[in-house]
Amino acid sequence: MRKKKFPRESFVSMTELVLPNDTNTLNNLMGGRLMHWMDIVSAIAGQKHSNSTVVTASVDNISFKHPIRLGNVVTLKAKVTRAFNSSMEIRIDVEAEDVPTGHKFESNAAYFTFVAIDQNGKPINVPEVEPETEEEKEVYNGALRRRQLRLILGGRMKPQEANELRSIFDIKEA
Amino acid sequence: MRKKKFPRESFVSMTELVLPNDTNTLNNLMGGRLMHWMDIVSAIAGQKHSNSTVVTASVDNISFKHPIRLGNVVTLKAKVTRAFNSSMEIRIDVEAEDVPTGHKFESNAAYFTFVAIDQNGKPINVPEVEPETEEEKEVYNGALRRRQLRLILGGRMKPQEANELRSIFDIKEA
Amino acid sequence: MRKKKFPRESFVSMTELVLPNDTNTLNNLMGGRLMHWMDIVSAIAGQKHSNSTVVTASVDNISFKHPIRLGNVVTLKAKVTRAFNSSMEIRIDVEAEDVPTGHKFESNAAYFTFVAIDQNGKPINVPEVEPETEEEKEVYNGALRRRQLRLILGGRMKPQEANELRSIFDIKEA
Amino acid sequence: MRKKKFPRESFVSMTELVLPNDTNTLNNLMGGRLMHWMDIVSAIAGQKHSNSTVVTASVDNISFKHPIRLGNVVTLKAKVTRAFNSSMEIRIDVEAEDVPTGHKFESNAAYFTFVAIDQNGKPINVPEVEPETEEEKEVYNGALRRRQLRLILGGRMKPQEANELRSIFDIKEA
Amino acid sequence: MRKKKFPRESFVSMTELVLPNDTNTLNNLMGGRLMHWMDIVSAIAGQKHSNSTVVTASVDNISFKHPIRLGNVVTLKAKVTRAFNSSMEIRIDVEAEDVPTGHKFESNAAYFTFVAIDQNGKPINVPEVEPETEEEKEVYNGALRRRQLRLILGGRMKPQEANELRSIFDIKEA
Amino acid sequence: MRKKKFPRESFVSMTELVLPNDTNTLNNLMGGRLMHWMDIVSAIAGQKHSNSTVVTASVDNISFKHPIRLGNVVTLKAKVTRAFNSSMEIRIDVEAEDVPTGHKFESNAAYFTFVAIDQNGKPINVPEVEPETEEEKEVYNGALRRRQLRLILGGRMKPQEANELRSIFDIKEA
Repeated sequence: MRKKKFPRESFVSMTELVLPNDTNTLNNLMGGRLMHWMDIVSAIAGQKHSNSTVVTASVDNISFKHPIRLGNVVTLKAKVTRAFNSSMEIRIDVEAEDVPTGHKFESNAAYFTFVAIDQNGKPINVPEVEPETEEEKEVYNGALRRRQLRLILGGRMKPQEANELRSIFDIKEA
Repeated sequence: MRKKKFPRESFVSMTELVLPNDTNTLNNLMGGRLMHWMDIVSAIAGQKHSNSTVVTASVDNISFKHPIRLGNVVTLKAKVTRAFNSSMEIRIDVEAEDVPTGHKFESNAAYFTFVAIDQNGKPINVPEVEPETEEEKEVYNGALRRRQLRLILGGRMKPQEANELRSIFDIKEA
Repeated sequence: MRKKKFPRESFVSMTELVLPNDTNTLNNLMGGRLMHWMDIVSAIAGQKHSNSTVVTASVDNISFKHPIRLGNVVTLKAKVTRAFNSSMEIRIDVEAEDVPTGHKFESNAAYFTFVAIDQNGKPINVPEVEPETEEEKEVYNGALRRRQLRLILGGRMKPQEANELRSIFDIKEA
Repeated sequence: MRKKKFPRESFVSMTELVLPNDTNTLNNLMGGRLMHWMDIVSAIAGQKHSNSTVVTASVDNISFKHPIRLGNVVTLKAKVTRAFNSSMEIRIDVEAEDVPTGHKFESNAAYFTFVAIDQNGKPINVPEVEPETEEEKEVYNGALRRRQLRLILGGRMKPQEANELRSIFDIKEA
Repeated sequence: MRKKKFPRESFVSMTELVLPNDTNTLNNLMGGRLMHWMDIVSAIAGQKHSNSTVVTASVDNISFKHPIRLGNVVTLKAKVTRAFNSSMEIRIDVEAEDVPTGHKFESNAAYFTFVAIDQNGKPINVPEVEPETEEEKEVYNGALRRRQLRLILGGRMKPQEANELRSIFDIKEA
Repeated sequence: MRKKKFPRESFVSMTELVLPNDTNTLNNLMGGRLMHWMDIVSAIAGQKHSNSTVVTASVDNISFKHPIRLGNVVTLKAKVTRAFNSSMEIRIDVEAEDVPTGHKFESNAAYFTFVAIDQNGKPINVPEVEPETEEEKEVYNGALRRRQLRLILGGRMKPQEANELRSIFDIKEA
């Protein structure tokens, strides 16, 4: 039987200070820099869950809501939400803070998918995920739907077969 | 009447050499670094289309198929595919090459959305896009569907209202 | 009466992945790079405690015990241990992990001192620290001794006046 | 017979956004940073022509005419102009643009010389260059003169022997 | 008999320009960045003295007195002051200059300790130091005292045994 | 009468350690990175001579002779050789060392020209140079010839007018 791990076992928190080279000419953090940090924090979470090297397989739709400013402190929290054979879905929550004023705001959340590989680059199986909290269970359940969307968008599943996903369109099974 | 611009007017090509700090311990380019480059090249395309400062609003689902290696040359090509008031959808095509052997492979494609803003950070209108080639027209038409998906995933549209998107599930309008 | 804050209110955790440019020719993390990270994490802790801009005033003796390797994940945890007018002593605990094998080891601990300043660079008063846990109380009590050592080494106190510090040499007061 | 390649086969276009760390205290791009980019883009062009690793052998005189500003977009275009055994002359054209206003200006042009080497660092022969356009032919013809100047300045040719170069001084052969 | 070397044989001078990413939001050089440079310059001095690879073993208390500004030029001078088997104490003197006005100020001094190692990471013996100037002799003599303090602070010597160090507290031997 | 300064008053020495990101796939320092360092060290020399901000005006032909390796220490020494109104010619001598073996080799020399500017970017006059040593005098005298070559190559002087330069071709004046 495959080993199981709790989401908290892969939990990683990363803090970054927004420096001049991370910003555009209006002194706002560039989206690409934030995604670079998201990728690093979630790769570490994936390594902790799988105890192996991991590679980024896909990134789900990300929205950038609030501008993050030069000098702000960005906190990124990642943990594995669900595993499928060799792939792991990882959720990253981003929060930004203007520390001197104490003003904090949730910036955004994102889902990255990583694949665990061995030293020859071959995919290897990873432990299953056993969610503990209510929030973890909800995210765990939504993972199937997000996975179908990823497969469709990546051209590896037909929309008609995506039963989990179809349900969000409030449609009876075909 | 709003001004129109052709996709080729915002076309940008960017070339990057994969250096040690861009790679993981298996000497493969990290996904976050590639997204950082995608963000820069598409921001420049958005600036060219809007003649203004732009900020990243969202990133669509991205799949990473082939590993890109240390020393490879990565070419990123971006152009605006369609505009909606102050926002622009930009498509980025990524190609990697092992230059000494001449081995080239398409790495992936992605859609980023940017919003044009003025010096106070307020959104401003941008020119419409007039597609010229068959490929540009096809991408232009698909933009509505991708936009609905973005709005749903961002929690700003109900799935039932996404008529364009529903069509990919082969369903009659509700 | 001056405001008080708990050490946990300034707590910051930062995670860094050791990349090629952070290492020497034996692929070990360079000490200077680690101190750079220590400075950033403790500056953020100081900002959280003081709600102001802070500058590094001094660094206590640091020992580097275990080599940290390329690809290791370094976790730095910082919190304010005690405050004196405008200065704050901050303790940083560093832990390194070879994530694929799960091998973790405590790397070292360090004390940095920061001064809170206003926009003109003038020192400003900061809240006092109220330790809660046994460990926090012990570190709080040791802060006087470390401060005397800093003042002596910085040439701002005569060794004979350092009563707290003299006690570690097991000597009766002069 | 040695293989021939067209200049367009080695053509590379690279786009860079001028970030804070690339600029001096007046917010102008530092010359050294621009030369760093010139070296990367021309190394890629040399790799494409020779299908091998290349090393910078020399840089011709470069003039910096217009200041390039923080936030400007710099486009560098490189192609091999002529080959001599294992060495290739590469021309780089630099253009800068203030994208929001659409103001573009030619910044400068430069010639770099690269040598193709094998995995042991030994020089290897490269294909000859067959210029196609009028401009390519003109640059091809000037390459001999520039090469003589390089050899003289590098102390590897006597000025009296540089017949091609002497002609620009309007002098009959000695 | 062990080889001897003069401090001037390991002397290294390094110059750095303070760039935007090295500074905090008040445009002052961050302490961590300065320590990073101190570590590099003293590692090079240690390599020159030992003709081997070196690793940072410890850093003595450092005070930061004057703020160093964006655009300032920082000069770091390092030389080995004394050697103990495989370890070397290195003194670094830091000077900052606002070059346009010619205003120079001594920023601070620090002592780093490095250990010479072979390719397997095993400590190896290094040459002894033979001080030449009055200043070098004074620093050489103080090295014992600083070493005792390091050992005590690192938990490897009891305060009561530190005879050299006790003398600065003006106390008769126990 | 214009102020004079000695070359030694603008002397700057800079030391850099070759890190992974500075090298190509054969672990040799990239030429562009070396030019970046040359530009920084000579800009500082120009600032010291002129006590003002400076911008790179041109770079003379540079040859790269010996490969510099990952982990080598590079020493760059710059001083102003001659001044013309607002421009200064600066010579940079580069030496590389494999420190563990003590193997040192002269890498190359280069001449950069800088222009002193005020806060509005207008050129301002700089002190004249008074060479002291034999070597400084020789370099001072050669500066006229190098300047004529720069002006010709930059299209600002006709070859027939370059009397100083013509002399190296061993030709009587036309």
